[in-house]
Amino acid sequence: MADSYVRFFDTTLRDGEQSPGATMTSAEKLEVARSLARMGVDVIEAGFPAASPDDLEAVRRIAVEVGNPTDGSRAPIICGLARTTANDIERAWEGVKSAARPRIHTFLATSEIHMQYKLKMTREQVLDKVREMVCLAHSLCEDVEFSPEDAGRSDPAFLYLVLAEAIRCGATTLNIPDTVGYTTPEEFGALIAGIVKNTPGIENCIVSVHCHNDLGLATANTLAGIQAGARQVEVTVNGIGERAGNTALEEVVMALYTRHSTFNCSTGIDTTQITRVSKLVANYTGISVQANKAIVGANAFSHEAGIHQDGMLKHQLTYEIMRPELVGAKQTRLVMGKHSGRHALKQRMLELGYRMEEDDLARLFERFKALADKKKGITDADLEALVSDELYQPKEYFKLDGLQVACGTMGMPTATVRLFGPDNQSHIFASVGTGPVDAAYKAVDAIIQAPNDLLEFVIHAVTEGIDAIGEVTVRIESNAGGQVIGAQSEVDQLRTFGGYGADTDIIVASVKAYLSALNKLLAATGQYEIAGEATAEV
Amino acid sequence: MADSYVRFFDTTLRDGEQSPGATMTSAEKLEVARSLARMGVDVIEAGFPAASPDDLEAVRRIAVEVGNPTDGSRAPIICGLARTTANDIERAWEGVKSAARPRIHTFLATSEIHMQYKLKMTREQVLDKVREMVCLAHSLCEDVEFSPEDAGRSDPAFLYLVLAEAIRCGATTLNIPDTVGYTTPEEFGALIAGIVKNTPGIENCIVSVHCHNDLGLATANTLAGIQAGARQVEVTVNGIGERAGNTALEEVVMALYTRHSTFNCSTGIDTTQITRVSKLVANYTGISVQANKAIVGANAFSHEAGIHQDGMLKHQLTYEIMRPELVGAKQTRLVMGKHSGRHALKQRMLELGYRMEEDDLARLFERFKALADKKKGITDADLEALVSDELYQPKEYFKLDGLQVACGTMGMPTATVRLFGPDNQSHIFASVGTGPVDAAYKAVDAIIQAPNDLLEFVIHAVTEGIDAIGEVTVRIESNAGGQVIGAQSEVDQLRTFGGYGADTDIIVASVKAYLSALNKLLAATGQYEIAGEATAEV
Repeated sequence: MADSYVRFFDTTLRDGEQSPGATMTSAEKLEVARSLARMGVDVIEAGFPAASPDDLEAVRRIAVEVGNPTDGSRAPIICGLARTTANDIERAWEGVKSAARPRIHTFLATSEIHMQYKLKMTREQVLDKVREMVCLAHSLCEDVEFSPEDAGRSDPAFLYLVLAEAIRCGATTLNIPDTVGYTTPEEFGALIAGIVKNTPGIENCIVSVHCHNDLGLATANTLAGIQAGARQVEVTVNGIGERAGNTALEEVVMALYTRHSTFNCSTGIDTTQITRVSKLVANYTGISVQANKAIVGANAFSHEAGIHQDGMLKHQLTYEIMRPELVGAKQTRLVMGKHSGRHALKQRMLELGYRMEEDDLARLFERFKALADKKKGITDADLEALVSDELYQPKEYFKLDGLQVACGTMGMPTATVRLFGPDNQSHIFASVGTGPVDAAYKAVDAIIQAPNDLLEFVIHAVTEGIDAIGEVTVRIESNAGGQVIGAQSEVDQLRTFGGYGADTDIIVASVKAYLSALNKLLAATGQYEIAGEATAEV
Repeated sequence: MADSYVRFFDTTLRDGEQSPGATMTSAEKLEVARSLARMGVDVIEAGFPAASPDDLEAVRRIAVEVGNPTDGSRAPIICGLARTTANDIERAWEGVKSAARPRIHTFLATSEIHMQYKLKMTREQVLDKVREMVCLAHSLCEDVEFSPEDAGRSDPAFLYLVLAEAIRCGATTLNIPDTVGYTTPEEFGALIAGIVKNTPGIENCIVSVHCHNDLGLATANTLAGIQAGARQVEVTVNGIGERAGNTALEEVVMALYTRHSTFNCSTGIDTTQITRVSKLVANYTGISVQANKAIVGANAFSHEAGIHQDGMLKHQLTYEIMRPELVGAKQTRLVMGKHSGRHALKQRMLELGYRMEEDDLARLFERFKALADKKKGITDADLEALVSDELYQPKEYFKLDGLQVACGTMGMPTATVRLFGPDNQSHIFASVGTGPVDAAYKAVDAIIQAPNDLLEFVIHAVTEGIDAIGEVTVRIESNAGGQVIGAQSEVDQLRTFGGYGADTDIIVASVKAYLSALNKLLAATGQYEIAGEATAEV
């Protein structure tokens, strides 16, 4: 295998988005796809179009807007996932066909345990189904990828047969998933080597690997796959995904880069974009990154403050295998203040990678000025929080119109909330709670009445000082409706919704985040009743 | 190597505590050590006694209280780290000697880059130093461990020589660190195999591995080491540690357990304690665990709510390689309410693994009753938050005596703070800020005047609903004094301090966390001035 180029297939928007609460809005997905393309990802798996009309529409928008670059850059492949059914494959094609380089990715399980308990199909039936569906996919789309699900626990001889059949029917990328994160690097490398050696026709195809991190081995397994001949890796930003998640994009990229003489492989990834994309995905999904996460954690690089120059030089040579600048992790600096104008803001946003429409810029500028009145120096982190809070929100059924809070050690935390509703009226309610956020959420619940459970609540105000914008992410689970079908498990799960809010006042940010999650829930279920008194003045 | 028992050497309290802001109080360290012993860890590296008198004292307390179990259980080895200097080794011995099974762990770098730039020593000088210092350690303590630092980048032939010399002088455990997290599993396995094969005398010793996660390969490298003959693994809970951290204890334990037929190794770890110890360490260090972290992340196991029984059964067989119960991750249940008495509380705390003194129990019961008045069901998570907040706090120079906050969308967040100081007087100050926490912290700063930078601020109120106790962790860095010498880097670093606070009101919890960090800073530097007016009523 002379080719030493490893293709990066990013599935943050598909397998990543399947993790509990990582649900993103269409606008957020589009922005993530843009960032992935800018970073140099080769293939973007944009979603599972058969899941719902919303999912299909999100994939379609990405295919149109990210799959057809106008600046002369090479178009990323836009891929849609499909089970091996005609409906799924047609939906996937509908989603991706507007891209300059579309791909359909279909899969079927090949392990005994999956065939027997989940599919209730014989080996012959599985072979027939693969033949039929890969042919259908290939009749629609030149670029077809096939995955034998749970390959890690499949009989290798049968696996070679199935893969050969998929190749004969037109599949050009064969992706080998360790679906349950069970294999060791040695085993997984041997599995890939066996496939490369024993599958008829594989020499004209790309072998791909897709690993999960249940035992903490996803990155090692992926690298073992590359050493055995795989030339595509399926990854997610920050390693998000169901359970313990997928292989982390940033770890594989930096291992290939740092240990180039060992792996002898190149990639198309611009490493300096890694930190920014990591933060973007953390914000939109609400899944924050642990301080000691490799490459993208807050502590991943040596803490250099206060180290003598001389000591630092020694230190660098002896304890550092990569420079933070390489992944774009240089400390952000104070960049703007209250005297900065609209043009300066537009310029800075461009440098940060945001191409903004004029009316979006106008809204952002308004928020920027309000913030500059409160806070001396506006950092890049502040700007990105404002973008997330202002521009990538779901359709607002209810909008925060006013909040007043009193709390402290006197023990009667009280919040008064005013919401502007879809009935074009303001609704106001006061509530007491165990704390200020509990009181405010109780007041919101009293007005909107959409039963839900709060699964997670996280407030961040990192690295920039306590006068910075506080960012809040919440995850809620609907008590009624909003079920979704998983691509693989095919069992109904209660859908969870993530919300994001940002403000210098963390109680305000908390209420915004809750409203953002509730607005997603309302969009999905359409079920709510408005209570609370409409105020007189509206 | 017939022995199939893998010893777990936990360095959460040494290498883990070296991560920025992970500083724990002596009481917290003792509680972590107790939990590690209960979980079945074989060796506890309790600290680096030469770092400061406080560090020595913390190691000594652990040696006395955890190193001598009275309940008939086997004593864990208590280990202290020392550079290869007489002073370090004597301090380490002073720290661990009261344990039933003490160990001294000493280290010296053997890679060309470290010898040339850091040590400025020749190979001969390194050999002499190892000889001299391992002999000294062995004259004090029967159980000596030696580590050739940066072994991953050392000349193997020289490494064998150094290790053989350490063995001749009495070292019985030889620990091989991949100090910079640079090797691949293949390389690291080959390194260990080479050492096992070529080092004279190694057949009577235990080979140990110590990996770092800079490229996401720590767990895979550790397992490769075991396959090559290592029988001790150095790990930390949640994988905390400098930069991207150390190998995560929980990942290695569960890989050995889940893949027993591959590794054929046993351990002494009670896996059902993993989740509890993980939470304890996350609370005390303030380093929270990412949702998709393997084994201990909130999402690590399939989300089962709302899945049909039938579907779940299928699901279990097809998508799950271990049960959550195995690591003690069963959902906590509502256990206690306002009618629960003191005896019931004591009983529940015992079940959770806390043996409490009567006066500690009395203080906890008081907090418990106050909480039960506000909140219907008190969960295990609430109880553990109360323990952290009430019992494992640093010496309180300043104590929160009252807080009153007003905030919301009207844009003038105001906090009034009353602190009881070391001068036995109450001090009160009101301040406005960009948000309620900023306002409250400004008021605290106005009273205490101990200049510092806030590095991180995180609020958690996970899984139990928004009326639960909110937990806040902060990290601050002193602007004046408080420097500390790292065991390995030997460069002065500004010391950072972590603080923890818990309350149903997150603003109250935020102020408590800040005071807790400030009290640690004051204990370390002794520098502050009291401003703010003493109130009349005291």
